[in-house]
Amino acid sequence: MPVTFQDIVSAAARLEGVASHTPVLTSRTFDAMTGCTAFFKAENYQRAGAFKFRGAYNAFVQLTDEQKKNGVLTFSSGNHGAACALAGRLLGVPVVVVMNHDAPQLKKDAVAGYGAEVVLYDREEQVREELGNKIAAERGLTLVPPYDHAHVVAGQGTAGKELFESVSGLDVFVCGVGGGGVLSGCSVAAKHYRPEVAIYGVEPEAGNDGQQSFRAGEIVKLDRSPDTIADGARTTSLGLITFPLIQKNVMNMLTVSDDELLVATRFFFERMKTVVEPTGALGAAAVMSGKMDVKGKRVGIVITGGNADMADLVGRW
Amino acid sequence: MPVTFQDIVSAAARLEGVASHTPVLTSRTFDAMTGCTAFFKAENYQRAGAFKFRGAYNAFVQLTDEQKKNGVLTFSSGNHGAACALAGRLLGVPVVVVMNHDAPQLKKDAVAGYGAEVVLYDREEQVREELGNKIAAERGLTLVPPYDHAHVVAGQGTAGKELFESVSGLDVFVCGVGGGGVLSGCSVAAKHYRPEVAIYGVEPEAGNDGQQSFRAGEIVKLDRSPDTIADGARTTSLGLITFPLIQKNVMNMLTVSDDELLVATRFFFERMKTVVEPTGALGAAAVMSGKMDVKGKRVGIVITGGNADMADLVGRW
Repeated sequence: MPVTFQDIVSAAARLEGVASHTPVLTSRTFDAMTGCTAFFKAENYQRAGAFKFRGAYNAFVQLTDEQKKNGVLTFSSGNHGAACALAGRLLGVPVVVVMNHDAPQLKKDAVAGYGAEVVLYDREEQVREELGNKIAAERGLTLVPPYDHAHVVAGQGTAGKELFESVSGLDVFVCGVGGGGVLSGCSVAAKHYRPEVAIYGVEPEAGNDGQQSFRAGEIVKLDRSPDTIADGARTTSLGLITFPLIQKNVMNMLTVSDDELLVATRFFFERMKTVVEPTGALGAAAVMSGKMDVKGKRVGIVITGGNADMADLVGRW
Repeated sequence: MPVTFQDIVSAAARLEGVASHTPVLTSRTFDAMTGCTAFFKAENYQRAGAFKFRGAYNAFVQLTDEQKKNGVLTFSSGNHGAACALAGRLLGVPVVVVMNHDAPQLKKDAVAGYGAEVVLYDREEQVREELGNKIAAERGLTLVPPYDHAHVVAGQGTAGKELFESVSGLDVFVCGVGGGGVLSGCSVAAKHYRPEVAIYGVEPEAGNDGQQSFRAGEIVKLDRSPDTIADGARTTSLGLITFPLIQKNVMNMLTVSDDELLVATRFFFERMKTVVEPTGALGAAAVMSGKMDVKGKRVGIVITGGNADMADLVGRW
């Protein structure tokens, strides 16, 4: 079931008045440093602090009445969990979130704060998909996975739709990648509005399964969850829905180091006064560290989220 | 020389295309916590990270050619200094900034980074106005003080003009106070658009000279620079231009504790994903801690600046 531009248009209609139309930020300093004209789609200002609410709500609202009544299970490193918890609260759907035990406390608190049930697992020893499927089967819950679901991907694509509708003539589009939901969804919108746009996905170096998959022409799965400060990109593989869209629409898959992510987050805080989590800075970090040619170009960059553990982050700067 | 609404209109014309029209932020969570509908004028996104650029540029651009050539001196706890340094760079005017030696390093770096000369003084032992006047006289520099100057106050008022033009029906307007430049300037704009608006100034408890002056009906000057984390409000008195405007337009002068400022800055970071310095949170802190009646009202709040020393701030949370 591929995701089409029409699916994104339908998702946008469902999200109208519920999800935020996030602002597009610009920075004279960033442009002077990089030689491009950058437009940041600021999904850190989305409800629950990340683009994830778009996909979660688009999936939840299409559940049957019985599914809504029985409840939803998801697995998440944090932001998708919080998004599902919020979507569940808004729609009266009970939610269970399977989270890795070492997810940032801020993200665990957010999920619980929206009223969802949290089940912790050890990402060194357990596979969250297996654990999640088991609990869902036992309790009759519908699974809304974090990225490999057509309704989720279509929802995430609405961020790209908004960006390309509000900024004309983008030459380049850059987006962080964990499981590929926001990149693949936005790539469909980007190619609709601007067929000639060059699209780049950006992963943390330690978790470059997407780059490996892109080069191999088939999904490559990491043996274990990668160690990186980009806690939202500790996924082990792209998905069956996201990978073909990335193959079709993306020009190249790039990586950045944790140090490059720290430099980018610090730039966002100190110069742009906007709170970005490490995963949220993947796209900007690639541009700042010269991973692709952007000189003189108009570049759209997604800030995917802002749920940063400040004390941890500042300690690493 | 009182400042009129026409002065603010003229200042806005001078600033067009140079200063940013900063966004107005909203927060469902803030509204739920406080019972009001809040509109944050986000001057932390202004050039150089604070409203100060408006007043500085409006003053610099009206200097004579000879004054521009000879250069400008100012004294500043940081943000006005950076604003003058940037205005000077844009207009080719040499700038000397007299700063207290314990100003945040970030602010000292910003002033130097924009190419101005920094002269440090000890705020326990020296009066910056005296030192500044002495250096200015010796070197033939024109003084552009941080608040008590009609062109500076008119420039700051453009922030209020933008807010009241973009948000209708404000019942309350709340703004932080150091020397009173942004409060007095914005109060003129606020009363022009909305004569019935209730205007509140907010100071740190330790530096409540404005509140004392408001009650006494004459300018009360503190013996020494107050100790507060609101480093932009360590002034000892209102000014001869700002005080009469505050007397005329403001309903009441309130104070908040440093702890209340910490809670407010943390809220901005964690929930609104926006970087606000302690001084910048004065207005929001007063609303959050219930210092005035805002239930059911539409409330405009100025975020005056975002040049926060992150490591210091996070350490205090």
